[in-house]
Amino acid sequence: MTLPQRINYITLGARDMASLRAFYAGVGWNERPGSSDDFATYEAGATLLALYPIEQLGEEAAPGERLPELGWNGFTLGINVESPQAVDDTFQSAVAVGAHSVTEPVKREWGGYSGYFSDPEDNRWEITWAPEG
Amino acid sequence: MTLPQRINYITLGARDMASLRAFYAGVGWNERPGSSDDFATYEAGATLLALYPIEQLGEEAAPGERLPELGWNGFTLGINVESPQAVDDTFQSAVAVGAHSVTEPVKREWGGYSGYFSDPEDNRWEITWAPEG
Repeated sequence: MTLPQRINYITLGARDMASLRAFYAGVGWNERPGSSDDFATYEAGATLLALYPIEQLGEEAAPGERLPELGWNGFTLGINVESPQAVDDTFQSAVAVGAHSVTEPVKREWGGYSGYFSDPEDNRWEITWAPEG
Repeated sequence: MTLPQRINYITLGARDMASLRAFYAGVGWNERPGSSDDFATYEAGATLLALYPIEQLGEEAAPGERLPELGWNGFTLGINVESPQAVDDTFQSAVAVGAHSVTEPVKREWGGYSGYFSDPEDNRWEITWAPEG
């Protein structure tokens, strides 16, 4: 038996649940029923995005380890949209409701067009148009 | 326009591309055509997992910021399987090919059963059985 080749959910350790979920509400994301004060989930295509207090997530996923510092944590979450214009529109609409612009959308060497913003806890999102769809 | 409620891809910044992709090959994941020495992608359900050198990802996603240290980086990736037994089998098969056991599968307060392992660069994976499927 090998590892099933799929990702069912991504859980972000949240430092401030209330403000982080307010951010995701602000960009228009709907929580699934059953979210609670210390657990919020969002259907994100076939993947679930979950927010969970970082101390509690750390107790499970990294017992005895220090919590990571704020700042870029080495990964990015990506959303593909249908055109360069849609990248700009999506990016600016996120910034308008509180996302932090990290790098404005630019043409990429590989032919695409993308920009990065961060949520209030420095999780990085790339909004991308890729020529092959 | 709000932010589309989906995650199309997750990109892990890789410190050692060759060994990290060897790990994912070892757990049975197939790379998509078009992977290169410094970019590897895997279909992971409707989500794409991508590996990309952390220095290059940092130049795009966190220009001017320090790279994160090794250690837990504040998020987890999750795979749901169909039974507690499948959690054990999947977990042990990953460990058998080089995953690091962080916490062996245990019953969780919320009724499920899960364990955490890490890949060679400390990315945390939870293998989970949830009672409601």
